[in-house]
Amino acid sequence: MSKHLIRGAIIIPIDPERPDYFVGDILVHDGMIETVSAYPLELDPMQADQITAGEKLIVMPGFVNTHGHAAMTLFRSYADDIPLKDWLEKKIWPIEARLESDDIYWGTMLAIVEMLKGGTTTFTDMYFFMDRVAQAAAQSGIRAVLSRGLIGFGGRSEEGLRETEALIENWHGAEAGRINIILGPHALYTCPPDFLHLVMDLAGRTERPIQIHLAETAGEVEDCLKIHGCTPAKLLYDLGLFDYRVIAAHCVHLSDEDIHLLAEKRVGVAHNPGSNLKLGSGIAPLVKMLQAGIKVGLGTDGASSNNNLDMLEEMRLATLLAKGTYHDPTMVGARTALELATRRGAQVLDLNRVGSIKEGYKADLIGINRDVPHMTPLHDPLAHVVYAAAAADVRLVMVDGTVLIEKGEFKLLDEEKIMAEASRCAARLTGGGRL
Amino acid sequence: MSKHLIRGAIIIPIDPERPDYFVGDILVHDGMIETVSAYPLELDPMQADQITAGEKLIVMPGFVNTHGHAAMTLFRSYADDIPLKDWLEKKIWPIEARLESDDIYWGTMLAIVEMLKGGTTTFTDMYFFMDRVAQAAAQSGIRAVLSRGLIGFGGRSEEGLRETEALIENWHGAEAGRINIILGPHALYTCPPDFLHLVMDLAGRTERPIQIHLAETAGEVEDCLKIHGCTPAKLLYDLGLFDYRVIAAHCVHLSDEDIHLLAEKRVGVAHNPGSNLKLGSGIAPLVKMLQAGIKVGLGTDGASSNNNLDMLEEMRLATLLAKGTYHDPTMVGARTALELATRRGAQVLDLNRVGSIKEGYKADLIGINRDVPHMTPLHDPLAHVVYAAAAADVRLVMVDGTVLIEKGEFKLLDEEKIMAEASRCAARLTGGGRL
Repeated sequence: MSKHLIRGAIIIPIDPERPDYFVGDILVHDGMIETVSAYPLELDPMQADQITAGEKLIVMPGFVNTHGHAAMTLFRSYADDIPLKDWLEKKIWPIEARLESDDIYWGTMLAIVEMLKGGTTTFTDMYFFMDRVAQAAAQSGIRAVLSRGLIGFGGRSEEGLRETEALIENWHGAEAGRINIILGPHALYTCPPDFLHLVMDLAGRTERPIQIHLAETAGEVEDCLKIHGCTPAKLLYDLGLFDYRVIAAHCVHLSDEDIHLLAEKRVGVAHNPGSNLKLGSGIAPLVKMLQAGIKVGLGTDGASSNNNLDMLEEMRLATLLAKGTYHDPTMVGARTALELATRRGAQVLDLNRVGSIKEGYKADLIGINRDVPHMTPLHDPLAHVVYAAAAADVRLVMVDGTVLIEKGEFKLLDEEKIMAEASRCAARLTGGGRL
Repeated sequence: MSKHLIRGAIIIPIDPERPDYFVGDILVHDGMIETVSAYPLELDPMQADQITAGEKLIVMPGFVNTHGHAAMTLFRSYADDIPLKDWLEKKIWPIEARLESDDIYWGTMLAIVEMLKGGTTTFTDMYFFMDRVAQAAAQSGIRAVLSRGLIGFGGRSEEGLRETEALIENWHGAEAGRINIILGPHALYTCPPDFLHLVMDLAGRTERPIQIHLAETAGEVEDCLKIHGCTPAKLLYDLGLFDYRVIAAHCVHLSDEDIHLLAEKRVGVAHNPGSNLKLGSGIAPLVKMLQAGIKVGLGTDGASSNNNLDMLEEMRLATLLAKGTYHDPTMVGARTALELATRRGAQVLDLNRVGSIKEGYKADLIGINRDVPHMTPLHDPLAHVVYAAAAADVRLVMVDGTVLIEKGEFKLLDEEKIMAEASRCAARLTGGGRL
């Protein structure tokens, strides 16, 4: 594979051993970051087959989206501003029941196009027809952490486990490790304890992590207290689920004891501030989780509750909500926010050598055009990315050393076709557009 | 002046007498909206000198930014994540003391460029060297509501009043009414009651509205209670300031009685959710203010506390924070959010015939490109603008019937030069860049 040199960019390495940012060169070789060099030490351009001029770019690790339901792009703004129960029962579940395999493929492709354009290089998915999701991820070049969403009651609950096992066999580690499969029991209120034991058996056999929705709403916690006499976190702890590697999504309504349990068992948290606000779930205790030493990453959730898949927005919300709710502008500073969106997200997902621009790490990186009014003047490039940048500023996207977007344009994917196919699927599902 | 026809766009008129959105034509003549026609009734293209193809556009009123300090773009990310007192006393005030007239001009121009690109067609400013701000606004084509920031102690407090009076004389109503001057006493804690009486005298003589920071922080309210024995809102009420037309900025810490007083006196509120979070001020009681019937608009505040001037972000924050803090996804729906950002903002600023796409209204409108992944599929264009669109999607910007941005490019302003000049000013003020 060729050697690719990015020259003279402002580099934000997200590497504890380096300064927050510096001007320098990056050499990518065989999918990996081979050398990162801070000026005045320039790398020899003669050794590279391909050179990207970095003068106007801020180059940083790609965003790691730790929670979502990709194909729900098909339901973007299909049902806004209505109560959660009606949203699920009257709108989302009935339409989900009509989803076919092709819908999933095109809905996922639409999500991938949007995510890549906004600088997301790894996404996480919990949904159905996961073979088609894996296919879309493989074709698109994005890094993926995929799970078959598991519902633990009704006659077909074991089918989901079998599908998960087949998915691991067929896809885990595919595309030189770019495709990762994990286990996806949906939530405590859809997966009874007996079923969770089957999930744990499978986790034990396959050594794959588990992602589960946890304490997303106050109602979920109330119901669990009524039925089981303890909080959802405590129940999972007592069941032994936290003895496996777990990614808990949302975690909006945690008691101080819950936070202690998550920290003790090294449970990772996927924090989804935008979705939590939009659905009226609330504001997760990010500051307390970080103070307890919990690994936290950021997620967009699905596009029907967000309504875009913009990791810059999630990052900004994460820091702004912490400052605003604590009445303290020093809470969750720009550096921490950027870590949540990259390196710590990769840790939450158990991905190795992802999330930093560092020698020996996978070359998942993005270039953000800093030559725009909203990042002028350039007092602090790192703070600009967190507090001012927009998805449209992302001009360069590389995953595993392959350039997927250059000068803002896709190299492999046909964006227009994907938008048209996804629109066609959505129109069929909803019985036509509203215009 | 020529007749300009926008054909076949999705129109969001923000007009209570019309549907939320429809496909149609808009005819602009002599700076005004002459006809709005819903399909199948098309307007005759032969009558137009200029035609814009609207097929891929959502056309809506331009955003009205009701509060800000434009030239503070120069301090964007100069001082983030530090306590408010240090931010003001150690960073912002010392550097503001060194501002010269040219800095204000270029800093304001940078703000205007950023705001226009993001679809803001009216901005509000409270700062210094306001002749230069008026000059920038006049040259750029944007609609402006400007005030000389007034500090009511120290030897030079009356100078500000004299400058305000001269500003009204020289600039109010200039550019066919595009430039508006109002009075800008900074806040209660910088303007003692005696000085506010002088401001009221001037407001009475000139019949211009007053903009003032109000109850931005918990500390401001505490101090007022200590010194005056009542809340800031009650003090202004008792002083008689609310008997004039008042735009109160921030209003984060209002008691229920304060809200009642603002409603009674028809005080308009400039709600700045992003700045209030970033500075740790808190979350304003938007839902309560709306329920009390208070006129509320949205504002970005200055770029040093936001850090961009993106009205789409403010609009999204306004609705998301309401839903999240009330644990109710029906709070401040998309239609209301869009009204706050347009029509109601214009009402707060006392601008006539601004903020809707309606016959006889000023032609301040924007076209948003809907043909992007994050607004696909097109289930609900209005919800897409509120929950998914980005500043970079704005492709067409028209103020007073003049096209300022077409296909995303400025027609009059030299964006590169403005960025370079603003960077030069910022470097001089801060003693050079950090890279």
